[in-house]
Amino acid sequence: MAGSPAMDRLVESLKRLPGIGEKSATRLTFYLLRAPDELAVELAESLMRLKRETLLCERCFDLGDRSPCKLCADESRDDSLVCVVEEPADRVAIEASGRFRGRYHVLGGALSPIDGMGPAHLRISELEQRVRSGQVREIILATNPNLEGEATASYIAERLRPTGVPLTRIAYGMPLGGDLEYADHVTVARSLENRRKID
Amino acid sequence: MAGSPAMDRLVESLKRLPGIGEKSATRLTFYLLRAPDELAVELAESLMRLKRETLLCERCFDLGDRSPCKLCADESRDDSLVCVVEEPADRVAIEASGRFRGRYHVLGGALSPIDGMGPAHLRISELEQRVRSGQVREIILATNPNLEGEATASYIAERLRPTGVPLTRIAYGMPLGGDLEYADHVTVARSLENRRKID
Repeated sequence: MAGSPAMDRLVESLKRLPGIGEKSATRLTFYLLRAPDELAVELAESLMRLKRETLLCERCFDLGDRSPCKLCADESRDDSLVCVVEEPADRVAIEASGRFRGRYHVLGGALSPIDGMGPAHLRISELEQRVRSGQVREIILATNPNLEGEATASYIAERLRPTGVPLTRIAYGMPLGGDLEYADHVTVARSLENRRKID
Repeated sequence: MAGSPAMDRLVESLKRLPGIGEKSATRLTFYLLRAPDELAVELAESLMRLKRETLLCERCFDLGDRSPCKLCADESRDDSLVCVVEEPADRVAIEASGRFRGRYHVLGGALSPIDGMGPAHLRISELEQRVRSGQVREIILATNPNLEGEATASYIAERLRPTGVPLTRIAYGMPLGGDLEYADHVTVARSLENRRKID
């Protein structure tokens, strides 16, 4: 359809990626044909290496190139603080904020009965074990502020209550740079409920 | 930044593609890590084969897997009609309209003095030669309806006038400033049907 079978094949492969349809895939394919050879080769090599050279940290279950990962091996970080996130991408977001110097625990998703994701599919027992065996003094539940993330946070809070370790939940409120006029009602309500005293 | 060096490398490679920024590249990388191994491998192989197994047809200069290409070798097509387009993607758009059963001629771009694209950079002499040596009874100028495409059509009309072969221009069923590659089939079909003779 696009030209050579090799072009059609790349279009089909690209279409399997999220957010890339027929037109984008065709456009990318023609772009790669016009671009220097090196670009397609570089992309292909990056793809081949991606899974081969990426592994799960046996401590925090984040993705990295070694286990324990760089953050788990970093002696300067605070062992007594554990931040629980759903996915590696969430860990990246928290780390990019520069406000957290503790350890992470990546669950590998959120509870979602519709998608068949139960507690056994997440690394919750591993978290429990980690909390029981260590000197953790606070667990920050940083699952996403949506239905699944809330359910997951509640479930983990219930499971970890017997350990006696204090649990916290990331704050809800207005995003910085946001506009009250365009914010959804729930966010505005939460930012009012969670208002803080100005000293 | 994202996790392993292999992940960072793929993010950097993906960012070199048009329309893919840091966030899309990171999202695609995490998606590929979660997806079955086979997807990344399939993509990598498609990329490696793309240029290796795609070549230029020596007759129409379209991209394909052989020369002469499938369309040039097709005995059922009308030799007396030649449709001149800028890029292989434009040929795809015309063919997808299902309204053209002649031959194609891919220029390899449009005249654009600003980008240093002169007549010598396009396959215009090859077109002239093709017209002079064959039994062509109509040349459809299907360059894009924008500044460069118009200039290219005018220039070719001037160059081919001495051959005496009737020239037509695709009709403006399309909005000015548009691109054939992204037009819908019906619009492309209309613009073929309404083509006008160039005096």
